[in-house]
Order: sequence, then structure tokens, then C-alpha cells
Amino acid sequence: MPDAERAGRGAAYMATLDPGLEGALRKGMAPIAPDFADMMVEFGYGEMMSRPGLDPKSRQMVTLGALAALGHPVDQLKGHINGALSVGVTPAEIVEALMQVALYAGFPAATNALRVAKRVFADRGVSPLPATGEL
Amino acid sequence: MPDAERAGRGAAYMATLDPGLEGALRKGMAPIAPDFADMMVEFGYGEMMSRPGLDPKSRQMVTLGALAALGHPVDQLKGHINGALSVGVTPAEIVEALMQVALYAGFPAATNALRVAKRVFADRGVSPLPATGEL
Amino acid sequence: MPDAERAGRGAAYMATLDPGLEGALRKGMAPIAPDFADMMVEFGYGEMMSRPGLDPKSRQMVTLGALAALGHPVDQLKGHINGALSVGVTPAEIVEALMQVALYAGFPAATNALRVAKRVFADRGVSPLPATGEL
Amino acid sequence: MPDAERAGRGAAYMATLDPGLEGALRKGMAPIAPDFADMMVEFGYGEMMSRPGLDPKSRQMVTLGALAALGHPVDQLKGHINGALSVGVTPAEIVEALMQVALYAGFPAATNALRVAKRVFADRGVSPLPATGEL
Amino acid sequence: MPDAERAGRGAAYMATLDPGLEGALRKGMAPIAPDFADMMVEFGYGEMMSRPGLDPKSRQMVTLGALAALGHPVDQLKGHINGALSVGVTPAEIVEALMQVALYAGFPAATNALRVAKRVFADRGVSPLPATGEL
Amino acid sequence: MPDAERAGRGAAYMATLDPGLEGALRKGMAPIAPDFADMMVEFGYGEMMSRPGLDPKSRQMVTLGALAALGHPVDQLKGHINGALSVGVTPAEIVEALMQVALYAGFPAATNALRVAKRVFADRGVSPLPATGEL
Repeated sequence: MPDAERAGRGAAYMATLDPGLEGALRKGMAPIAPDFADMMVEFGYGEMMSRPGLDPKSRQMVTLGALAALGHPVDQLKGHINGALSVGVTPAEIVEALMQVALYAGFPAATNALRVAKRVFADRGVSPLPATGEL
Repeated sequence: MPDAERAGRGAAYMATLDPGLEGALRKGMAPIAPDFADMMVEFGYGEMMSRPGLDPKSRQMVTLGALAALGHPVDQLKGHINGALSVGVTPAEIVEALMQVALYAGFPAATNALRVAKRVFADRGVSPLPATGEL
Repeated sequence: MPDAERAGRGAAYMATLDPGLEGALRKGMAPIAPDFADMMVEFGYGEMMSRPGLDPKSRQMVTLGALAALGHPVDQLKGHINGALSVGVTPAEIVEALMQVALYAGFPAATNALRVAKRVFADRGVSPLPATGEL
Repeated sequence: MPDAERAGRGAAYMATLDPGLEGALRKGMAPIAPDFADMMVEFGYGEMMSRPGLDPKSRQMVTLGALAALGHPVDQLKGHINGALSVGVTPAEIVEALMQVALYAGFPAATNALRVAKRVFADRGVSPLPATGEL
Repeated sequence: MPDAERAGRGAAYMATLDPGLEGALRKGMAPIAPDFADMMVEFGYGEMMSRPGLDPKSRQMVTLGALAALGHPVDQLKGHINGALSVGVTPAEIVEALMQVALYAGFPAATNALRVAKRVFADRGVSPLPATGEL
Repeated sequence: MPDAERAGRGAAYMATLDPGLEGALRKGMAPIAPDFADMMVEFGYGEMMSRPGLDPKSRQMVTLGALAALGHPVDQLKGHINGALSVGVTPAEIVEALMQVALYAGFPAATNALRVAKRVFADRGVSPLPATGEL
């Protein structure tokens, strides 16, 4: 696949997660590693994430599991919780996914991931809880 | 939820992943920590994994992401690749999910997870590749 | 064990670490995952931490070792350093425990854990050093 | 502290964990990095582990928490489970400590650590369970 | 850069580490994820490792640091110790690099990495020690 | 090696990375663990980092690989990026080294490390990019 096609696919996939994602990535890396931004767009999103063999919801679930388990990539987790909402995963499903990480990577990893989700949900004005606030 | 109900739910969920899973777990822990096996059945599967808010395929996707990213839980990854097949995730989808972990946790984590999948697929006689062996 | 008994045991154990711990946990999770707070109280503290087979000091030592080694769970480490003080571990013992993590998880993990301890000790007005400030 | 004193302290501490530990360490490193064996004896055991400010049981608890949480240092975990037995920690206490790691680093880390303990206990002919095999 | 050029660069770089590396990688992934092997050759080696801005010795040093610190990627560490030898890093330098990982990721990570190096050195018939076996 | 010699070597090595490093380390640890600062100076820098068998650039490359891969030691990574500049590694080489960590520990680890480098470079008024800002 030519670079331009890879970049185009990557940009298109990124736009489904967040219209501002590619721009923010390129702006952040411009003063230090613009090639790295290219790699993330072309390889990360253009070659890998946009492959047709797995639906976007499942891709986000894998991503949330990996990022929450690792624990340290807080900004990336925030971005992919937002991306999960954009591809149609509900807030309640995101919460279920992050809670479950407690089994595999411990309660602190899950707790901190849920705190990140809480901020993303607040920013987007959505809630994982029933409208009445009851479970 | 009474313990017996939690245990029953956990056992039922485990059986959907592998009919022999609960037995193997209890047998392995019997000489050292039978209470820990109870916790895994009652809490891990009965309270968490069997919650209704997320479909089993998505739960397995989160799990594969977390286990592959951590890298060291090889037996558990093997068990959950098998479980993913049991709940209807295709071999090709599992491969896509594990490949994607390279982005978040590095190529070695993804490579080693794919090797585990290769063994599980061989044991079950399934393949992620088209029948002709061509892509 | 019925849920109410598990919750009661968990709440009692949490109170020995910090009287405000359960309330803070429930308040933080209320808008996003109240069930997760239940799990932490009932399972984490009620079923696991309050088991009779290990003294509270040893439980805190295991916890400090695990959290400091993982590195990313900073808030949880802070909470359990505070909890260790509450169950009678001295500031000097906590420092010894965290220093030792350097051997198993590296100097950065130990250094960052000691910095967290420094803040907890300052908040509680205690010191690991002899009164004269000399060693 | 002169090197010889550090080495002597380290050797003495190692002997309390396992009389063959220093020899095995030095033999394993001899063909590749004998200086590294010196560092482990002199610094790891002589300067750090043998400090007087923390009792040996607590030191082993921190170590078990750290090693089990990291997951990959299997041989070292085996050695320190053995060492914990040598300084008087009971098999049942070791099991409690390793189970608890599930809360902080996930069930797979705890499960794999318990499997290591099972092998150490079998080698030493001890059991964490009541004599009748009942709990 | 067209795919063929990326693949060619990657293959050439891999050959400098080990003439059999690309073949072994492709053979291992053929029955499960041949696209993943392509990505490793084209992106991993062709786009990243073969960039001109850093000398091969430094690239291997970064790689050894990362792999040894993570702890779980044993086969990859083995491959890159071998690759380091191929690009002219001496056995003694590799040992120094891996020992140093003890500071940042703990003694067990460094110890296990040194054990992997011992096997690679034995396979290639080289030694990090002076010819007399003395230091 | 007597303690004073180890301390002297460590202090000298630290000064090559940053003239204020030892003072900052000792000041930060003074109220909580002055012995730990001694260990870092005497053992970490005096015994390990100042060993003659590996050039300082290679030592910093190993360190950057390890710290960036672990992800959580942000302050230490910042310090060693600064130290790498001090021993003559160019900003462009540091960027190459950190980008490469994406292969072994994932894109988030590399991205976050590059962000740390961006701050260090800004503080020192250096840039990894050609003077025209073009690549």
C-alpha cells in the first residue's frame, strides 16, 4: 500500500474516533518527532486499526483492555474511551469493560481507568447510569 | 447475592468458555488454596464476567487485550483464547485482536500472544486463514 | 457469606485503615460505577483483606510491595501507606519496605514510592527519622 | 562499610534464607557476570536486606508482593517463597499473601504465584492446609 | 516509501542482525498471521530500525534496555542479544548493559536477562570474560 | 571498594549528567530516607553506572530504553534524557531512541517519552529538528 493510501486510511479511521485526533497528534509531535506522527497515522491507524477483519467496537475493547491493564498510558486511555463512545460503544459498556480489568490487572488499574472514564463522560455530558441514577 | 447463587452463575459462565474449566481450576488449587478457586468462580466469573451489561464477545476482547498486554500470564491467555472461540469469536478475529496489541504494548507482546493462539488453534483444529491458505 | 456480611466485614476492615476510606471510595464511584465500589468493599476488603490467616501488618507489607513494584497506582499506594500507619506499622518500617522494592522493581519505583510516603508522613505529622534528625 | 563486611553480612543473610543460595548464585553468574553476583551479595543482601529496621518476615512479605505483582520473575519468586519458609513464615501465611496479590495485580499474577508456591511446598514436604485436608 | 522498498530495507536490516531472522519470523507466522510478519519486516525493521539517525549499536542498546526491563519477552531478548553481537557489540558490553538494567527494573529482570545472554554466548562460542577467566 | 571511594565515583559520574543531580537527590531524600540517597550515589552511580566497560552514551541508551518501556518513571526519564544530552547524545539521537521504544513497549510508552523529551529540550533550548524546521 503506498504511503499516501496508508495515510488516508489512517486519517479516515482517526476521524471516526475524534475529528480533532490527527491534528492534535501532529501538532504535539511537530516540534520533536513529526515522523513519529506519520507512523502513528500510517501504520497505527492506516495499516492496523483500519483492517477490515474486526469491527470497530471490538477493536476499542481490545484497546481499552490493553491500556487499562498497563496503567501508565493515561492520555491514550482517555483518547480511546472517547473513541469508543464515537464508534457507538455505550458509556455503560465502557464501564463494564474497565471494571473487568480488575480481574486481570488488579483493582487499582481498573479504578484509575474508571476515573479517567468519569472525566471523559463528564466532558461529553454522558452517563453510564440509568437516568434516575438508580441501578 | 448469596454465595451459592454467585457460585452457580460463575460455574455457568465458565462452562460457556470451557466445560472443563471449573474442574481444572478447582483441582489445581485444591492442594494449596481451595478458597482462591472459590473466589475465582464466585467473584471472577459469578459476579464480574457474568454481568449482563456487556456481551461475551466484548468481554473476551477486553480480556485478550489485558492479558496480551501484560505479557506474563501465558496460561490465562491460552484459556481465554480458547474461551473466545467458545463464545463465537472467530480465529481470524482473535488474530486481529492480538495483532493490534502490538500498537499498545509492543510487538513482542503481540508476537508471543499470537504464538499462544497458534497452539490453541492447532489443538482445536481451526485456522484463522482462508481455506486455501492464501490471503 | 451473605452480601451484607461481606459488606460489613469489608467496611470494618476499611475503617481500621482509614475511617473515611469507604465513604471516599463510594462517593468517587457513585456517578460512574457504584457496583465497582460494592465489589471493592465486599470482595476486596470483606472477603480477601479481612481473612484471619494473615496479620494486618503483613497484609500491608504485601500490598506496599505490589503497589510500589507496579509503579503506576500512585493513589492506591498513598492510601495503603496511610493504612499501614493506621495498623501500627511505623514510618521507619514503611521506609525500609519501600526502599527494598528497589531490589525487585528498580530504583525509580522505590524512589517514587518514597516520595509518596513523604507526602503521607507530612500530612500526618510523622517522620521515619530519629527525633534529632540523625541516623 | 568495607566490601568485605558488606559481603559477610550479605552471605549471612542469604544463609538464613537458604544455605545453598549464595553458592548457586555465584555459580550461575561465574561464566558471564561474576561482578553481578558480588553486587547481589554485597548490595542486595549485605546493604539492603540485612538492614536492622525491618523484621525478616516483613521483608519477605514485601518481596513476595513485589515479585508476584511483576509476574515475570518466576525463579526469584520461587527462591523467596522458600526463603520465607526459612525465616518462619508458615505455608498458610504465604498462601494468604499470594492470594492477596490478586487485588493489586490481578488474578493471573496471583494464580501463577500460587502455582510456584505449590511446587516449593511439595519440594519441602509442607502444606498450607489443615492436616485433614479440610478448610 | 512503497511497501516493496520498506520490505527491502527491513529485510536488509534484519540480515545484519541474523541472516535467518526474516525466514524464521515468516515461517512462524505463516500459519496464523502472515500479515503480522509483513508488518514487522516493513514497519518494525524497514521503517523504524533502519532509520539513519541512530547507529546500530545504540539501537541495540535501547532494545536490550526495553526488553530486559519488561521481563516477559524472553525470545525477543535472545534474538536481540544475538543481533547486538552481529552488529559488533562485544559480549562484555552486552553484559554491562544487562547488569545496568538492575538499577531501573530490578535485579530479577537483570538476572534473567543475563541468563538469556549466557545461553546466546554459549551458542555462539563467545565469552564476556577475559581469556584467563579472571576479572 | 571503600564506601568513600564508591561515593566519590558516584558523585563524579552524576556530575557528568547534571551538576545539580546529587544535591537534588540528597535534598529530596533527606527528610525520609537519607540512606537511600547514599545507596543511589554509592551503588547506582558509583558501582554500576561508572563501570569502565561501557561508554556513557551506550549506558544512557540502555537507560532510556528501560525507563521509557516501563512507562511510569517519568521523573527519572526526564533526568536521564537530560543526562544523555550532557554526555553528548544529540537531541535527534534521543528522539530516535525513544521512537524505537514503540516497537518493544508500544506507541503510548514512546509517545509519552517523547513528550518528556520535548519538555527537556525546551528547558535546554535545543531541538532535534534541522534548523529550518523541515525534515
